[in-house]
Amino acid sequence: MPDSSQKRITPRAENYSQWYLDVIESAGLAEHSVVKGCMVIKPYGYAIWENIQKILDAEFKKTGHENAYFPLFIPKSFLSREAEHVEGFAKECAVVTHHRLKNDSSGAGVVVDPAAKLEEELVVRPTSETIIHDTMSRWIQSWRDLPLLLNQWANIVRWEMRTRLFLRTTEFLWQEGHTAHENEEQAEEETMKMLEVYKKFAQDCLALPVISGQKSEREKFAGALRTYAIEAMMQDGKALQAGTSHNLGQNFAKVFQIRYLDRAGQLQHVWQTSWGVSTRLIGALIMGHSDDKGLVLPPKIAPIKVVIVPIWKSEEEREKVLKAALRLKEALSEISPELGVFGAVRLDDRDHLTPGHKFHEWEKKGVPVRLELGPKDIEKNAVVIVRRDTGEKKAILQSDAPSEVLNLLSEIQGALFQKASDFLVSHSRKIDHYEEFKAFFSGDGGFAYSHLCDSPDCETKISEETLATVRCIPFEQKEETGTCILCGKPAEKRAVFAKAY
Amino acid sequence: MPDSSQKRITPRAENYSQWYLDVIESAGLAEHSVVKGCMVIKPYGYAIWENIQKILDAEFKKTGHENAYFPLFIPKSFLSREAEHVEGFAKECAVVTHHRLKNDSSGAGVVVDPAAKLEEELVVRPTSETIIHDTMSRWIQSWRDLPLLLNQWANIVRWEMRTRLFLRTTEFLWQEGHTAHENEEQAEEETMKMLEVYKKFAQDCLALPVISGQKSEREKFAGALRTYAIEAMMQDGKALQAGTSHNLGQNFAKVFQIRYLDRAGQLQHVWQTSWGVSTRLIGALIMGHSDDKGLVLPPKIAPIKVVIVPIWKSEEEREKVLKAALRLKEALSEISPELGVFGAVRLDDRDHLTPGHKFHEWEKKGVPVRLELGPKDIEKNAVVIVRRDTGEKKAILQSDAPSEVLNLLSEIQGALFQKASDFLVSHSRKIDHYEEFKAFFSGDGGFAYSHLCDSPDCETKISEETLATVRCIPFEQKEETGTCILCGKPAEKRAVFAKAY
Repeated sequence: MPDSSQKRITPRAENYSQWYLDVIESAGLAEHSVVKGCMVIKPYGYAIWENIQKILDAEFKKTGHENAYFPLFIPKSFLSREAEHVEGFAKECAVVTHHRLKNDSSGAGVVVDPAAKLEEELVVRPTSETIIHDTMSRWIQSWRDLPLLLNQWANIVRWEMRTRLFLRTTEFLWQEGHTAHENEEQAEEETMKMLEVYKKFAQDCLALPVISGQKSEREKFAGALRTYAIEAMMQDGKALQAGTSHNLGQNFAKVFQIRYLDRAGQLQHVWQTSWGVSTRLIGALIMGHSDDKGLVLPPKIAPIKVVIVPIWKSEEEREKVLKAALRLKEALSEISPELGVFGAVRLDDRDHLTPGHKFHEWEKKGVPVRLELGPKDIEKNAVVIVRRDTGEKKAILQSDAPSEVLNLLSEIQGALFQKASDFLVSHSRKIDHYEEFKAFFSGDGGFAYSHLCDSPDCETKISEETLATVRCIPFEQKEETGTCILCGKPAEKRAVFAKAY
Repeated sequence: MPDSSQKRITPRAENYSQWYLDVIESAGLAEHSVVKGCMVIKPYGYAIWENIQKILDAEFKKTGHENAYFPLFIPKSFLSREAEHVEGFAKECAVVTHHRLKNDSSGAGVVVDPAAKLEEELVVRPTSETIIHDTMSRWIQSWRDLPLLLNQWANIVRWEMRTRLFLRTTEFLWQEGHTAHENEEQAEEETMKMLEVYKKFAQDCLALPVISGQKSEREKFAGALRTYAIEAMMQDGKALQAGTSHNLGQNFAKVFQIRYLDRAGQLQHVWQTSWGVSTRLIGALIMGHSDDKGLVLPPKIAPIKVVIVPIWKSEEEREKVLKAALRLKEALSEISPELGVFGAVRLDDRDHLTPGHKFHEWEKKGVPVRLELGPKDIEKNAVVIVRRDTGEKKAILQSDAPSEVLNLLSEIQGALFQKASDFLVSHSRKIDHYEEFKAFFSGDGGFAYSHLCDSPDCETKISEETLATVRCIPFEQKEETGTCILCGKPAEKRAVFAKAY
């Protein structure tokens, strides 16, 4: 692939948006395709997605969910059956109107065959509630069929005018959980359980501290009773919604007639949930941890966790060093299941690049630990170990390398979370006066914890005046009655306000 | 889900097509969706696909391939750039013409917004050569970028008029490998290597013997130099193409300008391959092994490998039996990585179903091994072990269960392959006279090995008269010059003829 390794990465302080794109390009994660708004996820970016999938999929199965697959296409009429849903969703989407091309009579390629017009247009799924709920209405008959716990890994299309790699693209990849339950309590329990799965994953694997809470009426999912979300803070102080979980109530069940005979023999509508995370998480990862040298990846999600860079000059040295490097690679691969995964330990034995070039390349790809091994190290049975996040390096004994690497990976994982947490705390503030609020958001910004009344008008006006929106009403907050940051009326809870991706 | 377990499965001898659909329904693998031609893959069917993915994906990675993801949409003009390709492919496909819906002015739902017409229509990928090759033209510059070994797991849409679950649906799931090489030899080596990966997978994991060979000019992939395939025989004697691997030559490279500087500094076009298998394989699995009692699955691909059915009458018995059953489950899960996989050992502790009902249900789902455990067995520290393929049952000691189960799973895997191989052999025949050939295909049919000349006319005429087509020209055949089965002209090789799915 074209060598972009010599290209300078724009520093964050100079241009944050450009820095984000430079990190993606120099790490080889993704690029824009010829199809407007659609991205190509390159192998290294896709490997991160595979790790996300692997870990989350195991959690979904442990919590009793099964994967299934539903059609890519949704009949147009389905979208308008749930009134709020169509308002919030159906508008900007890819519409299939024909099912055939034919040779152009002038010989210039192919044209749409007007004879092959569909009776009813199909929409490429912008989310799958409607098609899945229609199916559920045939699968569910008795309380014994409940809970029905499904998940789907799929591609999604929402036509976007302004796109940004990973964060907002016309096509993206995600998982969508869809469940049905006997009553509201069980649906609520499921909604919260899956939000907790997301929170744990974000914090433990992505090393991203998140605030979990409820979305405001204005920000909730179109058609849901309540939406919960986890919100992460990026290095520019903006919020990124990293996962959502919806209690759909009986709204869809009533529209799609999903009914069951309850334990008393009465026909009831089911209670439903849906929840999802997407390739957006890769955007969160990038903006949460990376630095001016390029990508920084938490070890648990990094496709390559350790890279060994051998250093030689003569052919004789080359042979000796490569032999020791290979031995080291094998010792590392054997010490833990994590390092035993195919590709997790990489030996960079390319002949045509200098060690310096290699260091630089793996740095930009965010590989957490680098081992440097040269002739002098070998004489001393030593190897140099370097951590990506801080750049610290030290010489260790080769025989200690496996345990040192494991320790360091775990240390880096913790350090990245700590660093991101410190950043979150230092950029969060309780604000009780609107002037201070406005100043906060015209400055560096961050998360403002402020009281908000129930009026959607206040919420709208605040976002118009400051560009900050309600990210969520956090679960964890002291009982502390106050007054709405805008109108001054009594308000019971603080909301987290932030500018958002 | 609705209990279809009481429904009778149509015997194969009575109506083979209906039997196939009954097996799918009673095992809960898939169903038609409201969207014409698109299927819903139900959790149990999807779990089989997940196992297929897991095993193949590991093989792809071991052979040096990386996964990536390319756009769902392909600009219409791309399809007509490779002339043969568009002839063979682009015609029956889903065409996206608009990107917005709007509220109907009459208030009746949503309509397509005429203002949101796309400048160039997009086609939902019927295969991804064009969009991937366009990308490759930017990724490849030097021989150092080669070989480029990519794979993509994706959904595919080809508009089909007559559909059959798994075998032919408008949307299906697949993997598509796409590679680029320095020369023809390396491309050919890759093409054959991946065909061999498919063959090994079909035989070792799916327990389906396959014939590998080259496709005729008439049957090759539109745009390829040469297509190779593996062909399996179903229980009605028909062939099912289970995987294809194409040497694309430089056809696409020339159209999409994929060039590299070779080792001598000269600009050259790359040589390419593509190869794929799809959810069709699940259809092959079903028709290859199942019987009149329902699905039969080879252990290596079965999502549930062992089911434990506890038997009790009184509450006291229930407690005792469930305790022993749970112990058994744990012992089984611990003995091998294969059984340690989440869900591989299932304890059916449902209260509201009789043991007989459970036996029946798991039989129809093709679970290879069943363990029956009742109060009398417990007194003797025994458990009854039953194999799905033959129905044989015997009592064994509970302490022997883990090793007995492992042995039996391996035995079943071998027995299914042997049975399918015997069937293939007994339904294959060398035929040298056209009258016999016609009689063969108007009777039970199977695979006919007959000489064929190079004339496409002969091939066409044979298929018109007998409905049998050339499945492949097998690699493995004796050098044995003969005469074309139709025209009598000299011919060097035998082709495998069969009616095909």
